[in-house]
Amino acid sequence: MLDVCLAGCGGGMPTYNRFLTSMVVSYKGRKLLVDCGEGTQVSLKIFKLGFKTIDGILFTHFHADHVAGLPGVLLAIANSGRMEPLSIVGPDGLNSVINGLRVIAPELPYKLNIIELSGKQNYSERIGDFNINILSVDHRIPCFAYSVYMERNKKFDREKAVKNSVPIDIWSRLQKCEDVKYKGNLYTPDMVLGGCRKGLKVSYCTDSRPIPELIDFAKNSDLFICEGTYGDDKKLEKAIKYKHMLFREAAELAREADVEELWLTHFSPSMISPDDYLSETREIFKNTILGENGLKKSINFTS
Amino acid sequence: MLDVCLAGCGGGMPTYNRFLTSMVVSYKGRKLLVDCGEGTQVSLKIFKLGFKTIDGILFTHFHADHVAGLPGVLLAIANSGRMEPLSIVGPDGLNSVINGLRVIAPELPYKLNIIELSGKQNYSERIGDFNINILSVDHRIPCFAYSVYMERNKKFDREKAVKNSVPIDIWSRLQKCEDVKYKGNLYTPDMVLGGCRKGLKVSYCTDSRPIPELIDFAKNSDLFICEGTYGDDKKLEKAIKYKHMLFREAAELAREADVEELWLTHFSPSMISPDDYLSETREIFKNTILGENGLKKSINFTS
Repeated sequence: MLDVCLAGCGGGMPTYNRFLTSMVVSYKGRKLLVDCGEGTQVSLKIFKLGFKTIDGILFTHFHADHVAGLPGVLLAIANSGRMEPLSIVGPDGLNSVINGLRVIAPELPYKLNIIELSGKQNYSERIGDFNINILSVDHRIPCFAYSVYMERNKKFDREKAVKNSVPIDIWSRLQKCEDVKYKGNLYTPDMVLGGCRKGLKVSYCTDSRPIPELIDFAKNSDLFICEGTYGDDKKLEKAIKYKHMLFREAAELAREADVEELWLTHFSPSMISPDDYLSETREIFKNTILGENGLKKSINFTS
Repeated sequence: MLDVCLAGCGGGMPTYNRFLTSMVVSYKGRKLLVDCGEGTQVSLKIFKLGFKTIDGILFTHFHADHVAGLPGVLLAIANSGRMEPLSIVGPDGLNSVINGLRVIAPELPYKLNIIELSGKQNYSERIGDFNINILSVDHRIPCFAYSVYMERNKKFDREKAVKNSVPIDIWSRLQKCEDVKYKGNLYTPDMVLGGCRKGLKVSYCTDSRPIPELIDFAKNSDLFICEGTYGDDKKLEKAIKYKHMLFREAAELAREADVEELWLTHFSPSMISPDDYLSETREIFKNTILGENGLKKSINFTS
């Protein structure tokens, strides 16, 4: 089971009723945090997300509303007693940003493993059990979307094991994907395992214009968290100028990518009632949810 | 009239119910901000304190809970349309801290006038109409207390003007503290003005142990805002170790300095109910108020 929490839903600047957009995904007690603007540490406390088991912080880009909370989060992680290294992933310039902000958090009891994504390439990373795909998107400065994929173990196939004359004593070791030498023979996991099973996929994109590459990137996600800075279609010119999306554009991506559910987030402080635009957005993609501080979902393996 | 607002009352880290300790003083529409930790920009918005007329930001010291909000505040000031220079005052290292944090706020439409207070001296500064006295205090890293003093113009003394044969045509100019040449004679303001009148004084000290110098420094303040990280006397050892104060110690300073009113602030996140310690603190200094987010007071000239 993968737990997802949207720690905030605002964009641009923190306001009295919206924490800035960031996401926590949790799997078997370990966590990734995507983005941390000013106030994210408070949101993580309010929604009881915990700091000690955050194994990675991923930055989409370096506008202040996505990164200014880093010193506070690093200090909160330190305060939690963490000693294990922490991975931080982000665009080109990540080292400079971390070094700059750490002027007020110079001493940490854990090491940082800094993974700087240079240029406009796409990447894959693995942090603990989390498989992370990374897509270069279209914002005013270098920016990446992240997709977290949790693999599901293949199912044990008893008939196949018997057919392949695999001794019963080593079934459980093979099931754990080990190669096993036994009584002079080599046995491999594929001799006892069935076909691939669908994993869990959560995709997260903010800030960007809607680019076609996002459709493949978010394809079949169980959950697609996507910016919808503006609800009103009349803001299209502004969205193009500042490289953001309308609700409609995010919903079109969700539909094309055939995702299970769309959460809109990164609302402009000028948009008081995102609700006003929900019904027309649902005409494009029915399973659209408006982001809110602390919105949570548990996603389970199927079949 | 001087307006004072305590924008937050927490210490150490922001929590769901306490913004971090900072103060805004306003006089004739111009403002000073003392300290800005993570979330201060949100507090300033909630309490409608405004950004455009902030002429100075004063830092007590560079622990993250007093400074991490700087990039957000600088960007909010930029967003307000300010073009005038902004003064920033703080301990040795101020340039490095600002340069570090500005990695995420590199472009501002106004200039910064950076005043770095080196060593353990005491200082006086003037920003607009604000006279600022600065005292080196006793924390784990270099730290300063600030006292803001607003002078009151001397009263016009008609009898004195007549006695000194000052022509009535130039009374108003002399009253504005100008020297005036008139019909071949030089006239000076002291020829028409009475004695000094009491100004307005607000003193602010966090984080520090109680040092004797604070008594003179805060002497006769209309308002003394002082840290009280711990209410419980049993926390004395901790207060000494981390260089903070107990409520009792702040109240003793207020009593010795003969201030009008004491506001306690910078409450430890571990102290859930500062109220529990208020009555015993008032036995030491009666006019003690517990700080809270957005606590305000207007202080008027007397006589």
